Amino acid sequence: MNIIGIDIGGTNTDIGLVSDSGIVVARKNLKTARYFDAQSLVNAMVEVIKRLMFDNSIATISGVGIGAPCGNYYDGSIDDAANLNFRGKTPLKTMMEAQLNVPVTVTNDANAALYGEMIFGGAKGMKDVVMFTLGTGVGGAIATDGKILYGSDGFAGELGHSILIPNGRKCTCGNHGCLEAYASIRGIIETCVELLQQFPCNDLAAIPRAQLNPKIIADAALKGNPVAIETYKRTGEWLGIALSNAVVFSSPQAIFLTGGILKAGDLLLQPARLSFNKHKLFVYKNEIPILTSHLNENDAAILGAAALIHEFH
Amino acid sequence: MNIIGIDIGGTNTDIGLVSDSGIVVARKNLKTARYFDAQSLVNAMVEVIKRLMFDNSIATISGVGIGAPCGNYYDGSIDDAANLNFRGKTPLKTMMEAQLNVPVTVTNDANAALYGEMIFGGAKGMKDVVMFTLGTGVGGAIATDGKILYGSDGFAGELGHSILIPNGRKCTCGNHGCLEAYASIRGIIETCVELLQQFPCNDLAAIPRAQLNPKIIADAALKGNPVAIETYKRTGEWLGIALSNAVVFSSPQAIFLTGGILKAGDLLLQPARLSFNKHKLFVYKNEIPILTSHLNENDAAILGAAALIHEFH
Repeated sequence: MNIIGIDIGGTNTDIGLVSDSGIVVARKNLKTARYFDAQSLVNAMVEVIKRLMFDNSIATISGVGIGAPCGNYYDGSIDDAANLNFRGKTPLKTMMEAQLNVPVTVTNDANAALYGEMIFGGAKGMKDVVMFTLGTGVGGAIATDGKILYGSDGFAGELGHSILIPNGRKCTCGNHGCLEAYASIRGIIETCVELLQQFPCNDLAAIPRAQLNPKIIADAALKGNPVAIETYKRTGEWLGIALSNAVVFSSPQAIFLTGGILKAGDLLLQPARLSFNKHKLFVYKNEIPILTSHLNENDAAILGAAALIHEFH
Repeated sequence: MNIIGIDIGGTNTDIGLVSDSGIVVARKNLKTARYFDAQSLVNAMVEVIKRLMFDNSIATISGVGIGAPCGNYYDGSIDDAANLNFRGKTPLKTMMEAQLNVPVTVTNDANAALYGEMIFGGAKGMKDVVMFTLGTGVGGAIATDGKILYGSDGFAGELGHSILIPNGRKCTCGNHGCLEAYASIRGIIETCVELLQQFPCNDLAAIPRAQLNPKIIADAALKGNPVAIETYKRTGEWLGIALSNAVVFSSPQAIFLTGGILKAGDLLLQPARLSFNKHKLFVYKNEIPILTSHLNENDAAILGAAALIHEFH
């Protein structure tokens, strides 16, 4: 029977109809930030699910798996996600089940992405893996001995909020210096803006800050713009330190990266890998590859979320 | 039957004869730094084991459990420990078994300390725990779902070498800015020396650097010396950030601290707890207590090492 897999991100909410064999047969997208309270987002998601089912002549589904920022696997809630418009504890599982007569399971969006990667992607067969999702926010997920690490309260792996630079940039979470303040969409823009203050004659300075985005900066870097190149170089260096810090925690076989800022490719990956290899503690003799997701963008998270309902192995 | 538990640290090697019921019935100490190669330390440990057995009229033991810096549970070796005189891969298990006709099991010293704490100490009954050992070096150990986290190659939990301050102080591992460079015996002395450069008229400036140690600094702090107080305050603040970073990784129920620099008590713990609570990510609603080991100093590590051979539960 078909399953619905949902990936709720700070910018996009992707909803996929997943076949029994683990194929995303149809998908639709909502702009998360347009929904100012949880009930509106739930209503919109339920509408999309019904539309996907109707369009594909599907009468029943076996369940809905959801990956969401601060999604709590233990109680099915979203709990004060820094990147969503609604704060407090949102009982997402209960709210969805009230409208759909099928089981709903919730996990962290990054956990869902890693789970999808381990079942369908480049981490197939790996038991110890770390994933960073680098988008609007920075999420993290850790698998040890083949299982997602949830910890005592379900919130293990919030790697975007490990403090990279004490007393550094203000983060959305209220702390200062979190990885998310440096290696996210907002972090890249901020790094670029900081550099432009030093180099006000650079071409990018002509673009209003509100219009600056990682793609414009990446395009400029590919044309040789030194501020744009330096922006990605610094972002990669910071990211590489965070990757080496993940290794001393859980000693993974590989680290996977996914999310919007990876579109910059080697502009980001090359300095990240250099910095990682420079900072990796010497006791880790095995190569620990830094890999990008092998799955279509967001498919990993949809499939990982769907896998909460149906074991595809 | 009796077991031998050994805790190899950068400064001391503690060897204990442990009863069937988990009591350290006798113990002896070696000064680790006096042994310039692995074979000499192995010979000395074997001598002490024989002496402990003879003195206590013990004819046979069931095995030897060893906690050692960079001790690898998977292959029984010590692998390039930054705090020992001997580098390269030391096949400790094989070397010890060659002289003692009993099974020898090796793990990281911090893992042994955490294991001991979970079986006999304050972490009894806890499943998700992190431990920091703060001595000559800084070690770490992580338990998730009741088991020690070893990771892909046996070296998970090297928390002393997570980078706290990018481009910070040089660490013994070769990197810069590791937690160990700030929250160890050497780190405290270095912080004090740095402060004394700013305040050369402070009483502590009269003490030659080679004679300065955490105890002298703590004693001065208790007498109101402002440089000494500030030394522990800064150390605690740094440590608190590292503790909050451990929480975003594995979401423990509690964090345990052990090791020599804890002798300073609240001088260190109070700023550490303040900093931890300030930096702890808001999603962790439960109190995560910062506790000191409930066991006699080093008993946890000896008992934890012994528990590798005999399950005391």
